[in-house]
Amino acid sequence: MSYSRIRLPSLHQKVMSAAQAAELIENNMTVGMSGFTRAGEAKAVPKALVDRAKLTPIKIDLITGASLGNDLDKQLTEAGVLARRMPFQVDNTLRKAINAGQVMFVDQHLSETVEQMRNKQLKRPDIAVIEAVAITEDGHIVPTTSVGNSASFAIFAEKVIVEINTSVSEALEGLHDIYIPTYRPTRTPVPLTKVDDRIGTTAIAIDPSKIAAIVFNDTSDSPSNVTEPDIDTQAIANHLIQFFEQEVKAGRLEKNLAPLQAGIGSIANAVLTGLMHSDFEDLIMYSEVLQDSTFELIDAGKMKFASGSSITLSPKFNEKVFSDIEKYKDKLVLRPQEISNHPELVRRLGIIGINTALEFDIYGNVNSTHVCGTKMMNGIGGSGDFARNAHLAIFVTKSIAKNGAISSIVPMVSHVDHNEHDVDILVTEQGLADLRGLAPRERAKVIIQYCVHPDFQAPLLSYFERACERGGHTPHILREALQWHINLEENGHMLADQAQAKTA
Amino acid sequence: MSYSRIRLPSLHQKVMSAAQAAELIENNMTVGMSGFTRAGEAKAVPKALVDRAKLTPIKIDLITGASLGNDLDKQLTEAGVLARRMPFQVDNTLRKAINAGQVMFVDQHLSETVEQMRNKQLKRPDIAVIEAVAITEDGHIVPTTSVGNSASFAIFAEKVIVEINTSVSEALEGLHDIYIPTYRPTRTPVPLTKVDDRIGTTAIAIDPSKIAAIVFNDTSDSPSNVTEPDIDTQAIANHLIQFFEQEVKAGRLEKNLAPLQAGIGSIANAVLTGLMHSDFEDLIMYSEVLQDSTFELIDAGKMKFASGSSITLSPKFNEKVFSDIEKYKDKLVLRPQEISNHPELVRRLGIIGINTALEFDIYGNVNSTHVCGTKMMNGIGGSGDFARNAHLAIFVTKSIAKNGAISSIVPMVSHVDHNEHDVDILVTEQGLADLRGLAPRERAKVIIQYCVHPDFQAPLLSYFERACERGGHTPHILREALQWHINLEENGHMLADQAQAKTA
Repeated sequence: MSYSRIRLPSLHQKVMSAAQAAELIENNMTVGMSGFTRAGEAKAVPKALVDRAKLTPIKIDLITGASLGNDLDKQLTEAGVLARRMPFQVDNTLRKAINAGQVMFVDQHLSETVEQMRNKQLKRPDIAVIEAVAITEDGHIVPTTSVGNSASFAIFAEKVIVEINTSVSEALEGLHDIYIPTYRPTRTPVPLTKVDDRIGTTAIAIDPSKIAAIVFNDTSDSPSNVTEPDIDTQAIANHLIQFFEQEVKAGRLEKNLAPLQAGIGSIANAVLTGLMHSDFEDLIMYSEVLQDSTFELIDAGKMKFASGSSITLSPKFNEKVFSDIEKYKDKLVLRPQEISNHPELVRRLGIIGINTALEFDIYGNVNSTHVCGTKMMNGIGGSGDFARNAHLAIFVTKSIAKNGAISSIVPMVSHVDHNEHDVDILVTEQGLADLRGLAPRERAKVIIQYCVHPDFQAPLLSYFERACERGGHTPHILREALQWHINLEENGHMLADQAQAKTA
Repeated sequence: MSYSRIRLPSLHQKVMSAAQAAELIENNMTVGMSGFTRAGEAKAVPKALVDRAKLTPIKIDLITGASLGNDLDKQLTEAGVLARRMPFQVDNTLRKAINAGQVMFVDQHLSETVEQMRNKQLKRPDIAVIEAVAITEDGHIVPTTSVGNSASFAIFAEKVIVEINTSVSEALEGLHDIYIPTYRPTRTPVPLTKVDDRIGTTAIAIDPSKIAAIVFNDTSDSPSNVTEPDIDTQAIANHLIQFFEQEVKAGRLEKNLAPLQAGIGSIANAVLTGLMHSDFEDLIMYSEVLQDSTFELIDAGKMKFASGSSITLSPKFNEKVFSDIEKYKDKLVLRPQEISNHPELVRRLGIIGINTALEFDIYGNVNSTHVCGTKMMNGIGGSGDFARNAHLAIFVTKSIAKNGAISSIVPMVSHVDHNEHDVDILVTEQGLADLRGLAPRERAKVIIQYCVHPDFQAPLLSYFERACERGGHTPHILREALQWHINLEENGHMLADQAQAKTA
């Protein structure tokens, strides 16, 4: 045990086992835990809670930054601990419980959770469990690989459990920049005007007397599960790079583009990786999660600064980055997700937001979350925080899924997370649709022409043309609008004739 | 003619007839005109353009603040002048042309139009036509009853036509506060922290050599067409007031509430009027349009300050307010719509946004624009600017329409302008649903219980329960999800059995 990481000696007496600390969590409590995109989550206490629940059932409302690693959501779900979960998740077991109506999932814009707590519109955590690399001389908490909602959770909670992760280098101290917006009605502007501005403190400032327990863990974050770029994601990246080149030429982007944001996952990661082979220099990022691609670009001298709320890496990059974090420290900052995703800052900085769509429709409405309008995948995450106010709101996806049974472009999306007003650019491996300044009938033409897989182009064009004959600003045939999804549910293919062909 | 209103004498030579000024507008030009919620639109030049188009066809792209009065959109449509129109309209003739695909309408968040021009993502106006009460000694333009997008249009356009409206009192000078955000990447925070802050200038500062023509008009703004509160809107207001009282009691709102925003139209106006009979004092507004209700509240001593982008009044209030504007000047400010609706400010100030829904669904997704998913009504206007970042995003509507043939609450909305993530409170005359912190299945229960008209409650509950049996985070039965809209289109009633009953 590294008591030296607890630099306020009076807190040494608060060290206990995870099982003892977990006893502080009572039935029906609201618990705020660290963790964002599988980085920096508390690891020992939730595990101890699972063990305890196997003996004595307990239910809690669990609020985090975003997704947790180390299968914690899976284990908590299987142990029946979760009554309510917000604001994001990516776990397959939890997803099933959500879709079965067993766990109440509140899917939120990631910048809004602690704002709603601050205004007492969401219940504040009774207790917070925060992973840290150290506790300072003042009793303040130095986070690990994510900030997420940890700072506000610790501030709002009556009791705080700190998990010191001894597997994470103490050299991370100084990486974080904790800024908390002031209360209304006297709130002042967030004083950030450049991606590398530091506007807060390097640790979470709380009254140390609130620290009710300190637990040690030595478990690593789960490695990132992004897949390598493939031919389709490479094509998406190429379309985007060509587009950026045109924008620079037209004087609509600087030569180093604008602050980049890229959503979690393989496609967004591949798009950023694609910039390795572009002519753009001095790139900057203002994003929520920093993945492998960020460090590839930094290592290659292509990116000069990256601001995020978490770092989520593959084993290879994890070793490289965290064994030599000092090398990166002047090029990185981790902020609360309220600040990394803040609408005020997204608009001010003029971000290029690149996020993944589950599907979009011929008019440019995007579904990021619900399969066939009903089943939750992960959650909207930060995509809405960025897309609404971005300089460029870009959504990317492969044009087909499930070996061509599914077209990612449909007549009408089965669920809307981002509507026509908030979507500028759509990209698939087929091409790029620039929707800026276009009316719906114009948008449909460029989307069908540039983004749709050839197998689905004729039926989509037919739908659009027949809908236009019936009239309307956004022409639809309601009897057919969701038929592709119905076909998929009932026959396993979006096109009725294909489904029949398969069956025959 | 009042040359005294042109205080820079060198500009006197630019005075000409509206017909002469209209000659400056060429075929295929992009024209930026003043006008927001039927207030402060240029009146003589567009009329002259209509007259000219009757002889020689001309097409333009017309961009305004929001809707125009004096039937200008009607006349411009009938004369075939409009190729493209943005970002909002409320005219019946134009609406028909939009829905027939004859005019390309770009429906935008009202804070975004000039931002997109600033970044060259939307074509900047070739020429601007701006109504004014005066031109200053410096050649700067003092707007009339709205600011809208006028300032940025005048700044971006190569040529500016000023229409001096002699029917509007020169005493309006000093009412306006013109602030223009700086360019990225060096943009600074918008320095407004209180609704009554003045952060800009009282006139639109442009190089006077850009003023290519000055025209006089003496035509009044069209009167507001809001209807008097009725028993249903009064009930909506009562539900909201009771809710606000509970919020104050719970410590979630101050005693004077929070800055109020209310959308254009009869229902939102009635809700504000309802506050006359509440115990709330010292109310403040940070809204886009200031309607009769604002001045009722000011006159009654209930409201101490109102910030807007336009003033749109009934004949009675128009006479009262503008004949004695000095009385109101220290309680009012008119700002560019980019600032009245700015996401940065909406979030900072913590606004209570009250906007009208066309329909909403059992999960709280709101359709503000499209009848049966297809036909445009007016446009999203500022509702998205406010709802996304408001302290409370409230949507109001009557629970039924067309004598009960239409339920405003449906299984699935036919078009989404505001999704589940952005909707806190829904109110009909039946009651109020508080959706904060609820998962979709929980939202459905409170919406069906509190907002739905009794005639539609059982069928909605049946849909919801049958959908839940099939599972999903947001349970739907895709084969039935849009059936109510299909019934309405085909049989004139949302419920199939009712439609048959009617036919039989």
